[in-house]
Amino acid sequence: MDYQEEAMKKHKEWGGKIEVVSKVPLDNKDDLSIAYTPGVAAPCLAIEKDVELSYELTRRHNLVAVVTDGTAVLGLGDIGPEAGMPVMEGKCALFKAFADVDAFPLCVRSKEVDDIVNVIKLTAGSFGGVNLEDISAPRCFEIEERLKKECDIPIFHDDQHGTAVVTLAAMFNALKLTGRKIEDIKVVTSGAGAAGIAIIKLLIAMGLKNVIMTDRKGAIYEGRDGLNKEKEEMAKITNREMKKGTLADCLVGADVFIGVSAPNSVTEEMVRSMAKDPILFPMANPTPEIMPDLAKAAGAAVIGTGRSDFPNQINNVLAFPGIFRGALDVRASDINDEMKIAAAKAIAGFVTEAEVSPEYIIPSALNKDVAKAVAEAVAKAARDSGVARI
Amino acid sequence: MDYQEEAMKKHKEWGGKIEVVSKVPLDNKDDLSIAYTPGVAAPCLAIEKDVELSYELTRRHNLVAVVTDGTAVLGLGDIGPEAGMPVMEGKCALFKAFADVDAFPLCVRSKEVDDIVNVIKLTAGSFGGVNLEDISAPRCFEIEERLKKECDIPIFHDDQHGTAVVTLAAMFNALKLTGRKIEDIKVVTSGAGAAGIAIIKLLIAMGLKNVIMTDRKGAIYEGRDGLNKEKEEMAKITNREMKKGTLADCLVGADVFIGVSAPNSVTEEMVRSMAKDPILFPMANPTPEIMPDLAKAAGAAVIGTGRSDFPNQINNVLAFPGIFRGALDVRASDINDEMKIAAAKAIAGFVTEAEVSPEYIIPSALNKDVAKAVAEAVAKAARDSGVARI
Repeated sequence: MDYQEEAMKKHKEWGGKIEVVSKVPLDNKDDLSIAYTPGVAAPCLAIEKDVELSYELTRRHNLVAVVTDGTAVLGLGDIGPEAGMPVMEGKCALFKAFADVDAFPLCVRSKEVDDIVNVIKLTAGSFGGVNLEDISAPRCFEIEERLKKECDIPIFHDDQHGTAVVTLAAMFNALKLTGRKIEDIKVVTSGAGAAGIAIIKLLIAMGLKNVIMTDRKGAIYEGRDGLNKEKEEMAKITNREMKKGTLADCLVGADVFIGVSAPNSVTEEMVRSMAKDPILFPMANPTPEIMPDLAKAAGAAVIGTGRSDFPNQINNVLAFPGIFRGALDVRASDINDEMKIAAAKAIAGFVTEAEVSPEYIIPSALNKDVAKAVAEAVAKAARDSGVARI
Repeated sequence: MDYQEEAMKKHKEWGGKIEVVSKVPLDNKDDLSIAYTPGVAAPCLAIEKDVELSYELTRRHNLVAVVTDGTAVLGLGDIGPEAGMPVMEGKCALFKAFADVDAFPLCVRSKEVDDIVNVIKLTAGSFGGVNLEDISAPRCFEIEERLKKECDIPIFHDDQHGTAVVTLAAMFNALKLTGRKIEDIKVVTSGAGAAGIAIIKLLIAMGLKNVIMTDRKGAIYEGRDGLNKEKEEMAKITNREMKKGTLADCLVGADVFIGVSAPNSVTEEMVRSMAKDPILFPMANPTPEIMPDLAKAAGAAVIGTGRSDFPNQINNVLAFPGIFRGALDVRASDINDEMKIAAAKAIAGFVTEAEVSPEYIIPSALNKDVAKAVAEAVAKAARDSGVARI
């Protein structure tokens, strides 16, 4: 099937992938008097006295804003806020289908950090959480950081943390399968943008010690030219041997490759230079850093990509619906590392000891039971880490 | 029924009166590839090339933001943004039930005109129109005025214009019933806030010449003390005889009383001082300026209130759903006077010549056929006045 062509046809037919519907009867005088005036004054006054009641008396308890400025949409780049909307609506539809979360898309007509922060901060009373989406680096880091400080609801940039959670889930099973421990492995990334940095931070939180991130200029090390603030920070906690050189140089002897960069940037030779039975997650979309058949031929033990037409698809839909479901269920004030790690473990746990194999380290993106398990694990982690408010 | 008590019970049970649902199948790989990646890239790129396509390929064509800052909610006043949400959700539910418009509530955590304008301006690409709601005067005037200039989608402050449209509709039939022409009548208002000013502006647009607005200090006339900018402007186009005095003084000999102010502020004696067969619209809610039975006893020929338990309820729900339906259907860039007047005529037209009586000058707020007729009239007026974009 030509997905592009079919998508155009269907999007025209659908006229939008989400819909806002009424949940209440509005057919007679009593209906109107209860859902609207004069009865509605009662819940209004109750919330005025105690704002927390907005979670019980309005839809806020189940409502997530999906916000973009359209600057980093899919692999398409800066296509503008309105043009990002089909992706945002798709995300909202997935939220509902996978975790019964009501999600509403907002595209912001500005690339200014202040504007994006203000729009979200000023409307935060309308929502129970905010999913930032497809906002380009490095602005996405500052936007998320400021919002986490300035808002009283959970803020989650899915391109960073959703990807990190699902990658970590896949990593758990890949390490198990190849008999490795996270403390002992050497990881090399291609790409040091939003996703790459979030993945490595989460792996470090799980015990990873030996890691080199690379960008277009090669290995990232402390003091290198051309590092933005975020890469500078990563340079302080990665590559402690101060290795210099190209991706190919860095990959020699590495256990794990994580690709969040450009298509076809890894060769079979580079794979052969890695440690025995290497793990490869070439996740560039739609064309990975190396195609799975080539990686396998070059000795890769486990391969995960972003694509649905190969085994082990590392797809955010395994994470974000359940993460927000869990966060909303306990009215979490934040989505912290503990909750992300719990989500990753819940996803990995869907593949049993008996089932795990090089072709099956992560459940199918279509498995809607995953979100429920993720939600439960995330809710528990929120309680245990003290960010649950109910 | 105790509506307040019942409303609290029901609002707890409902947990929100609206819901965001998915319109698309998301059950298999093809579904995901069409609604989301990789297929979704096609509609994204199409919108990047032509932003107008956002109306065809996303929900924008049917989507209205209902925005408040919670400063003038019902008769409750400034109760805060979150506390206004039950009213906004109720409004959204009515939009959907009466005109199949998807409406989404946003409450803004600021009373600053700049903040409210910016939030709406920056998110305008997500919507096909904006319904401003329960924002206190005089800020509501500046906010609407600025947004109308700065946004490319229709902006409509319902407390002003919805009320004005339905009042005008009632007026058409009340004048017909008492054999008056709008050019010849004398109108006196109690109240010169958002609704009062909008009503009088629309009546003037229809031909009204003789009108005195009053506020707590009595008649408004050019040069009077204590006038804000909006009242000063009204002073220039009303009360050309520069009448001074109280509401009671002004009402002497008046044909029509329009109340958008305080309960029980009009006495039977004041009604008796009006012209023969006067028309009274005491619309203060929940307690009118004078109760209908008292007004009738004092000689009122036609009475309309805001209440559903008396005849002739002047209820905005007769206007806003159909007005936005019509505006969205022709992708109008504005909701102008022509469209408002067309809406008022369509509403009034629901009461046939044979049916019209002192107890029946306006259709029931529960009559869902009204919105359809209003939408058609508004769409036609948009086309005729050159603001339709399709």
